Amino acid sequence: MAEHLSQSELDYPFKLLEYFNGFRVSKVIFSACELGVFDLLLKAQEPISAQHVAQELSCSEDGMERLMDALVGIEILEVETKDGTALYSSSDVANLYLAKGSGKSLHDMIIYQSQTIYPLWNNMADAVREGKNQNEKTFGLPSEDIFKALYRSEEEMLKFMGLMNSSWVLDGHDIVTAFNLSGFQKIVDLGGCTGALAREMAKAWPSSSVTVLDLPQVVEVAQKHFPQEDDAVEFQSGDFFSDEIPPADLYILARIIHDWPEEKCVTLLKKIHDSCRPGGGVLLVEALLFENRRGPVTAQIFSLNMLVQTEGRERPPSEYTRILEKTGFHNVQVCRTGKCYDTILATR
Amino acid sequence: MAEHLSQSELDYPFKLLEYFNGFRVSKVIFSACELGVFDLLLKAQEPISAQHVAQELSCSEDGMERLMDALVGIEILEVETKDGTALYSSSDVANLYLAKGSGKSLHDMIIYQSQTIYPLWNNMADAVREGKNQNEKTFGLPSEDIFKALYRSEEEMLKFMGLMNSSWVLDGHDIVTAFNLSGFQKIVDLGGCTGALAREMAKAWPSSSVTVLDLPQVVEVAQKHFPQEDDAVEFQSGDFFSDEIPPADLYILARIIHDWPEEKCVTLLKKIHDSCRPGGGVLLVEALLFENRRGPVTAQIFSLNMLVQTEGRERPPSEYTRILEKTGFHNVQVCRTGKCYDTILATR
Repeated sequence: MAEHLSQSELDYPFKLLEYFNGFRVSKVIFSACELGVFDLLLKAQEPISAQHVAQELSCSEDGMERLMDALVGIEILEVETKDGTALYSSSDVANLYLAKGSGKSLHDMIIYQSQTIYPLWNNMADAVREGKNQNEKTFGLPSEDIFKALYRSEEEMLKFMGLMNSSWVLDGHDIVTAFNLSGFQKIVDLGGCTGALAREMAKAWPSSSVTVLDLPQVVEVAQKHFPQEDDAVEFQSGDFFSDEIPPADLYILARIIHDWPEEKCVTLLKKIHDSCRPGGGVLLVEALLFENRRGPVTAQIFSLNMLVQTEGRERPPSEYTRILEKTGFHNVQVCRTGKCYDTILATR
Repeated sequence: MAEHLSQSELDYPFKLLEYFNGFRVSKVIFSACELGVFDLLLKAQEPISAQHVAQELSCSEDGMERLMDALVGIEILEVETKDGTALYSSSDVANLYLAKGSGKSLHDMIIYQSQTIYPLWNNMADAVREGKNQNEKTFGLPSEDIFKALYRSEEEMLKFMGLMNSSWVLDGHDIVTAFNLSGFQKIVDLGGCTGALAREMAKAWPSSSVTVLDLPQVVEVAQKHFPQEDDAVEFQSGDFFSDEIPPADLYILARIIHDWPEEKCVTLLKKIHDSCRPGGGVLLVEALLFENRRGPVTAQIFSLNMLVQTEGRERPPSEYTRILEKTGFHNVQVCRTGKCYDTILATR
């Protein structure tokens, strides 16, 4: 495949130039999201001019016109000219995923990527040089305690929790149905944040009871800012490193293992093994690397993301299997979903 | 086309997620360039391990391995496993365009994009809101005098001139051969920077004499840092806004008009018209927008780039035609090259 790419790219590196433009395309979408362009277009329900959008959102007309034209170029918006005026409307994709209101909105994920991840990646060369996260250089935050950094204020907590919440919108259903989990009665989602994945779990496996365990301040913000009527999941406060882990039949660790160096993962999984009921197990949710190091690109890039922001990494299945077996788990089964996040099930 | 995209994207927005990842893919390549990965792989002439690369470049092994794996994922590097060790080699594209030595190297362009443009784009939402460049917010530089900002130190000048120099590597030949320019004897490239495009011009039209006119400090740095043996072009110091413009048969304005608001462009083109010899003309080199606002994406994104960094914009051909005719030029001919930069020729 690389050979194939090279052949035409040698004459003129179109693909390479597209890669160089990548950060600009990201920021075109992110900026429009931050300014509320997609929300306004959804609300308008008819094509409107850039001038109109600029006035409503207190922006410069010139800047807004350029931004919206670029969004047309990448096929996020559509444009038609009527009586000499360019009128813009949203695509279905933008209405579904980029506007705030939709149940599938990725708005919170985008805000977090734009305001936190984008600046962090500006220090990627230093992260590779030093082999550690760049929270200090980017935001003046301590590099040792990553959750102290992530949760440094209620505003930052909300942003991070919004990211977590909206990211299960896409892969949540595939993840919870990758394995037959009907045999597990009591399920605890360790570090389950706003409960978004736990709710998918409860919906897919209605005979189970699902509890989210997370830090007290996270549970508080989850219940204040992400409340659900007739919530199918329960919340419990606790630190899975320092507090006791409640007994259960199945533990979910969704994007938890990838935050930490191996010794911390081993400590946590041993503790889980001790609390796990007979016949129980653990479900890991992570972006799995290929064993041959050739992909998937998403997981490789996530692993660099973990480098620049946390103490962890993404791993191939063999690594998870090794760590799980080292901590007493058996019968490790891997399911690749073909989307961003995959699952691994192991029994006690 | 947007309809077509929407259909499959509604179920799972793969393309949208790729756009969100754009900034990370850019920074994967940029960081590897900054750290010297491509130069080392070219020098090594055989596949080498990430450990080896990390040691040579004083980087962490873990970070380097993740970075190189991501480069494999996007097909910039290749990997094979021998006796349990992953060995990496460069693709032909990387050797040609990303390593420093090659005559087609885009290295300097990348450094500028990574260190100057990437941080500027972090303030794109504000640029759209305010309708002006973000040099002050990003770098604490005055937003009024853009070249004072660009040329604030010899180091910054070098970076910017490196960008300009390496960007003609790709489109230079197509630009200078887009029209038959054999009839023009004396050619002056106004703001011709390091002389890279002027040299392409001299090579394509050997019977003409080509002079680069640029600010005294630019000419000085060009001759110190980008010298050429038996240079086919001459350099002349001058400010095309405040000094006299030397008489010539053809003036080149390559990526000059897009830096300025219309009134400054009109002033400059009138001045050029006055100095232009009978039968002479002006050749504009810019990324041309489509009249229908639907593309090209590159030009639309460049126009946002001009917003966040300068006082200018990209324009469709009709705008250039209008400005050229307003300043006395005739017979405006447009040539789209199909690459990033296009050309417009007009006669006096």
